[in-house]
Amino acid sequence: MTHAVRPSLARRLLAEGVGTALLVAIVIGSGIAAQTLSPDDVGLQLLENAIATAFGLTVLILMLGPVSGAHFNPVVSLADWWVGRSRGRGLTLGEVGTYSIAQILGGSLGAVLANVMFAVPTALSTHDRATGAHLVSEVVATAGLITVILSLARTGRGALAAPAVGAYIGAAYWFTSSTSFANPAVTIGRMFSDTFAGIAPGSVAPFIAAQVVGMGVGVALSLALYPDAGDAADEVVVPALDEDDATS
Amino acid sequence: MTHAVRPSLARRLLAEGVGTALLVAIVIGSGIAAQTLSPDDVGLQLLENAIATAFGLTVLILMLGPVSGAHFNPVVSLADWWVGRSRGRGLTLGEVGTYSIAQILGGSLGAVLANVMFAVPTALSTHDRATGAHLVSEVVATAGLITVILSLARTGRGALAAPAVGAYIGAAYWFTSSTSFANPAVTIGRMFSDTFAGIAPGSVAPFIAAQVVGMGVGVALSLALYPDAGDAADEVVVPALDEDDATS
Amino acid sequence: MTHAVRPSLARRLLAEGVGTALLVAIVIGSGIAAQTLSPDDVGLQLLENAIATAFGLTVLILMLGPVSGAHFNPVVSLADWWVGRSRGRGLTLGEVGTYSIAQILGGSLGAVLANVMFAVPTALSTHDRATGAHLVSEVVATAGLITVILSLARTGRGALAAPAVGAYIGAAYWFTSSTSFANPAVTIGRMFSDTFAGIAPGSVAPFIAAQVVGMGVGVALSLALYPDAGDAADEVVVPALDEDDATS
Amino acid sequence: MTHAVRPSLARRLLAEGVGTALLVAIVIGSGIAAQTLSPDDVGLQLLENAIATAFGLTVLILMLGPVSGAHFNPVVSLADWWVGRSRGRGLTLGEVGTYSIAQILGGSLGAVLANVMFAVPTALSTHDRATGAHLVSEVVATAGLITVILSLARTGRGALAAPAVGAYIGAAYWFTSSTSFANPAVTIGRMFSDTFAGIAPGSVAPFIAAQVVGMGVGVALSLALYPDAGDAADEVVVPALDEDDATS
Repeated sequence: MTHAVRPSLARRLLAEGVGTALLVAIVIGSGIAAQTLSPDDVGLQLLENAIATAFGLTVLILMLGPVSGAHFNPVVSLADWWVGRSRGRGLTLGEVGTYSIAQILGGSLGAVLANVMFAVPTALSTHDRATGAHLVSEVVATAGLITVILSLARTGRGALAAPAVGAYIGAAYWFTSSTSFANPAVTIGRMFSDTFAGIAPGSVAPFIAAQVVGMGVGVALSLALYPDAGDAADEVVVPALDEDDATS
Repeated sequence: MTHAVRPSLARRLLAEGVGTALLVAIVIGSGIAAQTLSPDDVGLQLLENAIATAFGLTVLILMLGPVSGAHFNPVVSLADWWVGRSRGRGLTLGEVGTYSIAQILGGSLGAVLANVMFAVPTALSTHDRATGAHLVSEVVATAGLITVILSLARTGRGALAAPAVGAYIGAAYWFTSSTSFANPAVTIGRMFSDTFAGIAPGSVAPFIAAQVVGMGVGVALSLALYPDAGDAADEVVVPALDEDDATS
Repeated sequence: MTHAVRPSLARRLLAEGVGTALLVAIVIGSGIAAQTLSPDDVGLQLLENAIATAFGLTVLILMLGPVSGAHFNPVVSLADWWVGRSRGRGLTLGEVGTYSIAQILGGSLGAVLANVMFAVPTALSTHDRATGAHLVSEVVATAGLITVILSLARTGRGALAAPAVGAYIGAAYWFTSSTSFANPAVTIGRMFSDTFAGIAPGSVAPFIAAQVVGMGVGVALSLALYPDAGDAADEVVVPALDEDDATS
Repeated sequence: MTHAVRPSLARRLLAEGVGTALLVAIVIGSGIAAQTLSPDDVGLQLLENAIATAFGLTVLILMLGPVSGAHFNPVVSLADWWVGRSRGRGLTLGEVGTYSIAQILGGSLGAVLANVMFAVPTALSTHDRATGAHLVSEVVATAGLITVILSLARTGRGALAAPAVGAYIGAAYWFTSSTSFANPAVTIGRMFSDTFAGIAPGSVAPFIAAQVVGMGVGVALSLALYPDAGDAADEVVVPALDEDDATS
C-alpha cells in the first residue's frame, strides 16, 4: 500500500457525480421496469430491482473506484474522514463537503435520466416511507454498509469492495423493511421519481437522520472489531492506484 | 501461511456474536419480506430468501473472517477443534464453548432484530419441521458445509470460503427438503420468530442432533479426501491475517 | 504488461465469430425459453433472460478473451481503435472492419442456431422497438459499456472484464427501457428471430445509430476519467497473454 | 505449473463419485423443491433449478478439484485424455474408464439421495426428452462446456473453472431447449427420479450420443482456438496442487 498521489479533485468529483447519477438511474430505472413488467407480484418486482442494483453497483465501483474511491454516498465519505482524521488519512472535511455536493447533484440528475429513459415525467414521489420500523432498518442497513467497507479497507482487501458492497445492498433490500436506502444522496435523488423506488419528500429527512446514526454505529462497530481501522482510510472504497497510474 | 497471533478472545467473540446476529437477521428478515411481498408462490419466497441469504452470508464472512474465522456456527467451531486437536491447531475445546455461547446469543438477538425491523412481534415459531426427510436433509446439508470449509482450508484457498459458503447455502436451501439450516445457533435463533423462516421449539433438538451427525460425516469425508486436513485448522474459515495485522 | 505477439488474424476472427454467435444464441435462446415457460409475467421472462445472458456472456469473455479480446461488438472494436490510434495501440482500422464482419456474420448465425435449438422457424422479427425513450436508453447503455471496458483496461484490471461486462449487461437489461442491446452485431442478429428477443428490421438502423453515439459518449467520459486510457488499448477486453502463450 | 504427483487413484475415484452424487442430488433435489413450491410457472421452476445448480456445481468443483480435477462427467474425462494423449498429459484411457464408472455410480446414488431427502419414491422417470431440437441442444451445450474447460486450462486460468462452469451450466439451462444435460453420468442418474429433472430411459442413449458428438465438436473448436491446448491436459478442470500438497 504505497500512498499514491490522488487524481485531481475535479476528476474525483466527476467520478462521484457520474457514479451516483448512474447508481440512482439503475435503482429507479430497474424499479420502473419491474413495476411495469411484473405488475402482479411486488416481491418479484423487488427481486428484479435488487438483482439489477447489486450487479450495477458492483460494476460502478469497479469502474470509478480508482478515480475517487467510488463512495457515491455522503455518509461513506464522512466515515472515511472520521476514522482517518487523527492520522492524516482519508478525505479532509472540505473534501467531504464537495464530494457530498457532487453526489447529491449526481443522484438527482440520475433520477431525471431514469425518467427520460422510461418516458416517465419527473415528479416528486408520493411514496411515504417514514415509519419506526423503516427508520430502525435504515440504521441497521447503514451500520452494516459502513462496517463492510471499513473492514475490507483495514484488512487490505479493498479490491473486494465492489462485489461485497453490491452483494450487501442486494441482500439489504430484503432483510430490512425499508429496502435499505442507506445513502443520503440516493435518498434525495429518489425523491424525483414518482415510481417504484421513489420516496416522498417528507420521508427524506428522517431517513437521512437514521442513516447518519447508522454511520455512527458502523464506525463504532468497525473500530471495536478492527482497532486500527483508521490507518486504512486512504483505501476507502478501493485501494488507490500505484503512483504511476494515479498521477496521470 | 505464517501462524499469526490471533486477535483477543473478546474481539473474536464480538465478531462471532455480531456475525451470527446479522446472519439470523438476514435469514428471518428476508423471509418476512418475501412472505409479505410474494404471497402467492412459496417457491418465489424461497428464491428471494435464498438469494438474500447467499449474498448476505458471503459479505458477513468477508467482513468478520479476519477477526474470528467467521464460523457463526457451533458445529463449524467443533469441527475446527476436532480436526486440529492432535496437531495443536484450531480452536481449543474451551474456545469452542465460548464461541458457541456467543453464536447462540447472537443468533437469538438477531431474530429479535429482524422482528423489530419488520414490526413483527417476537414469538416462538409454530412451524414444525422435524420429519424424517428433513432430518436426513440436515445431515446431508451439514456434511457438505463442513466438507466445503475444510477442503478450502486444507488447500490454502480460505479466501474463497466467503463466496463458496454463501453459494453453498444458497444451493442447499433448494436441494434439501429442510431448506438447510445446517447450524445449531441459527436453528435456535430461528425459534424466536413466528414467520417464514421460523422453526417450532419441538423441532430444534432433532435438527441439532442431525446437524451434529452431519458434522461427523463431513469431517470423515474431508479426512478421506484430504488426509492432512487437520494441519489447516488455523485457517478455518478464512486465512489468518499476517502478524502485523492480527496483533493490532 | 508486456506487449505480446497476438494470435493470427484468422484465429482472432474465428473467436469473434464464434463468440458473437454464441452470445446471440444465448440471448435469443433464453428469451424463447422464458417466453414459453413463463407465459404470464413479462418481468419474469426478462429476469430469466437477463440472468442467462449475464452468466453466459461472462463465460464467453473468459473463454475467448485471450484469443481476440472477446469484443463481440463492433462499437467496442471501434472504440479500441479510436483511443489507441495515436499511440500505436489497439486494433487497426482494417482490423475493426474484419472484426465487425466476423461479429455480424456470427451474430446472424447465432440467431439461426437458437431457432434450430428451439425448433422455431427463422423469420424476421416483427418487434418494433425504435421509440425516443429506447434510443436514449441505447445511448446510455452503450456509453456505460464502453466506459466499463476502457476503465478496467486502463487500470490494469482487464481480468475483471468478464464478470464486470456480464454483470453490467445483466443490470442494463433492467435500468434501460430498450433492454440494452448496446451492440450493432447483436442487434443485427436479433432481427432473425421473431421471438422474445427479436427486433424488427426497421428499428435496427436507429438502434445502431444510438449505439454509435453512445460509444462516442463513452469514449469521451473514459478519457475525462482516465486521461491516458488510450495507452491500454491493447488490453481491451482482456489482458493479452504473455508472449510464450500468445505466439502458439 | 509444476507437474505434481497426483493423489492416489482411490482418493480420486472417491472424489469423482461423491462429487457426481452431490451434483445429481442438487439437480434433482432442487427440481423437486421447485416443482412443489412453484406449481404455477414452469419457468420459475427452471430459474430456481438453474440458480441452485449453478451455485452448487461451482462449490463442488472448488471442493473436489484439487483431488481429482472435479470432472464429474465422462465426456470431460474423455476429452482430457484425447487432447493430452500424444503428449503424455491428462488421464490415461484406463483412468477414463474408472473415472466414468465412479461418475455413473455416483450419479445414480445421488438420484436416490435426492429422492430420500424429499421422501419421493425412487422410480424410473417417464419424462421423454429425445426430440431433434433437444439433441441439437445437447450437441451445442456439450461443445460449449468442453471449450470453456479446455480454454481455461490452456491459458493457465484453471482456478476460474469452478465459477465459469457453474455459470455456463446456469446459462445453458436456458439457452438450450434440452435444459443442457451435457453429461452422460448425470443423464443416467437423472433416470432414477420421476420428478422435474428426470429423463425417461428411452431418451438416455440419444442424449448420450449427442453429448459425445458435442464433445468432439468442442475438442475441435478448442484446438482451433488454442492449438496447443493439449499441453494443459493435466490442468483439467482445476490446476494441480503443488507437489507438497498433492503427495499428502
